[in-house]
Amino acid sequence: MSVPNSSSPKQPPPRNFAALLELLRPGMRALDEVLREQVAHFEPEVRDLAAYCLESTGKRLRPLLVFMAGWSGRPTPEPLLVRVAAVVEMTHLATLVHDDIMDHAILRRGRATVSSKEGPDVAVLLGDALFAQSVWLSTQFPTTEVCQSVAVATRQVCTGEIVQTLGGPGAEPSRERYRRIIDLKTAELFHVSCRLGARLGGSPDAFVEAAGRFGRRLGIGYQIYDDLTDFVSSAEAAGKTLGTDWASGKLTLPVLCLLERVGAAERERLLQQLRSGAAEAGATIAARMAETGVLRSVVEEGRAEIAAALAELADWSELPAVGLLRELAAYLEGQLDKLLAPV
Amino acid sequence: MSVPNSSSPKQPPPRNFAALLELLRPGMRALDEVLREQVAHFEPEVRDLAAYCLESTGKRLRPLLVFMAGWSGRPTPEPLLVRVAAVVEMTHLATLVHDDIMDHAILRRGRATVSSKEGPDVAVLLGDALFAQSVWLSTQFPTTEVCQSVAVATRQVCTGEIVQTLGGPGAEPSRERYRRIIDLKTAELFHVSCRLGARLGGSPDAFVEAAGRFGRRLGIGYQIYDDLTDFVSSAEAAGKTLGTDWASGKLTLPVLCLLERVGAAERERLLQQLRSGAAEAGATIAARMAETGVLRSVVEEGRAEIAAALAELADWSELPAVGLLRELAAYLEGQLDKLLAPV
Repeated sequence: MSVPNSSSPKQPPPRNFAALLELLRPGMRALDEVLREQVAHFEPEVRDLAAYCLESTGKRLRPLLVFMAGWSGRPTPEPLLVRVAAVVEMTHLATLVHDDIMDHAILRRGRATVSSKEGPDVAVLLGDALFAQSVWLSTQFPTTEVCQSVAVATRQVCTGEIVQTLGGPGAEPSRERYRRIIDLKTAELFHVSCRLGARLGGSPDAFVEAAGRFGRRLGIGYQIYDDLTDFVSSAEAAGKTLGTDWASGKLTLPVLCLLERVGAAERERLLQQLRSGAAEAGATIAARMAETGVLRSVVEEGRAEIAAALAELADWSELPAVGLLRELAAYLEGQLDKLLAPV
Repeated sequence: MSVPNSSSPKQPPPRNFAALLELLRPGMRALDEVLREQVAHFEPEVRDLAAYCLESTGKRLRPLLVFMAGWSGRPTPEPLLVRVAAVVEMTHLATLVHDDIMDHAILRRGRATVSSKEGPDVAVLLGDALFAQSVWLSTQFPTTEVCQSVAVATRQVCTGEIVQTLGGPGAEPSRERYRRIIDLKTAELFHVSCRLGARLGGSPDAFVEAAGRFGRRLGIGYQIYDDLTDFVSSAEAAGKTLGTDWASGKLTLPVLCLLERVGAAERERLLQQLRSGAAEAGATIAARMAETGVLRSVVEEGRAEIAAALAELADWSELPAVGLLRELAAYLEGQLDKLLAPV
């Protein structure tokens, strides 16, 4: 593991999100290389399928968190940091392959899902094989910490999805339950990405824990943002099909907030729709959210999570990693604000 | 890890399979205890489901292999050996939860499958969570060897199932392909069970490797036996529904062997049936297998694998573990022979 390097960064701090991405480009390229190398570990019969999943051009958000939290100011990416970025991304990709089965998704980022291409059976098994390979990669560290953290995070991600699935649209609308689900299914892996990044970047233990807490709150903020983009679109989120979570009856924060604001009769009607699977158009609901102030209120809740995330970094301003994490948080805040002026 | 103890076993060697099971009972009880302890690691919302899977009363074959290969003659089970037995069993149970989705199985060992009880979505996620917990448990060892071996085995088990699924009944009948599938889906985890058992039992490296090779060949022999029990039943295997693999078009060794023996017209007719999913009754096919000598011939092939497994142990007669592994091999040979006189 590398030595902490909290002084004299070799690179200037980023001025904006584009500069941040530019700074991390060598790490992200090295990540793609490690993911490509993993393909050769799969048995020949499934290499093409494994490559298809690993080459997917997702946002790679979790690796970005790893690189940011582990940033020491040196432009050349640390090999252990690249490897841990690959572990969290492969774990995430494995869960997506399984999610797409449940959501009956045909496309993901413009490409056919494994489930629609090869059928759900192959998708179940390929997701398992991807997860197994990410476990293998997580054993390629001097200690078992990476493997252990990723195992716990995976169990929690799946549990979050189980709680969501078992409840279904018939569940009692509850903020506590929503919070629990997104903490398990999203925030935990954000937490692990930041914590392991800081650890392998050689930071002191207290910062490793602070970075983990930052990741957890940021994950909550990100999930709130993501749940809002089911109803309102910004230029950046424009490619996404609106209203799919709503149509499947998911009790996300915007929905819970709308149910709280409307009168008893409207609430009953909306709940009825959610439970019967015959929901009215998402656009109608989105308009009600704008009228009733739900949109603004949920944006505020998302901003509050990001503020709480930033507060965790307050004592660590001198670390080069913190400049990057703050820039990412500012970017997510900006994305939330843009939803108030939908295109 | 414990010190090898190849002399003066504290317990007499088993006289038969029942005595073998008696010898291993303390270890198997400790295994059940460790599996029960795992339930508490799951998040509260899924504990009941996790317990339902972990308390299943399967054959626990892989833990038996761990205990046998790691047997040092001491009656008290080594804690690390118990833990590795729990890892391989949990990994196996996770794959069964996913297999039952694909097979549309309603019951397993007389109890409703997770898939039939909670739906396939929950079964996918719960299988993932079980696998994640087995990974966590595999990090509770001084080295990463357990975790690494189990990760590779899991990837191979899933790949074996993918190869089987992608080929389907339309695949060209091929012994090479059959061999490859059962090596991946069954023999690899038998291999890992024996190898890790011997390792954690404190045996010399050369025996660890020999035990692994024994496990692999025994796994092949076991799978051949298991594939035969789709057509013929013995008193021991009597509970099993016959003909399910045949009806789903699986090109197992008995089927391949029958296709080799019959004339061109019958071969064509059988292939047609397999591919159209309208196979005639398994009992009719079983009768043809008896008439054509296929049954005897497949039993011989299974026995040959067991003989090859035993040959791997030839140089290690003085180790207490070897007496147990030989007794298990003899039991499986006996089970194969019983299929020649079906009830």
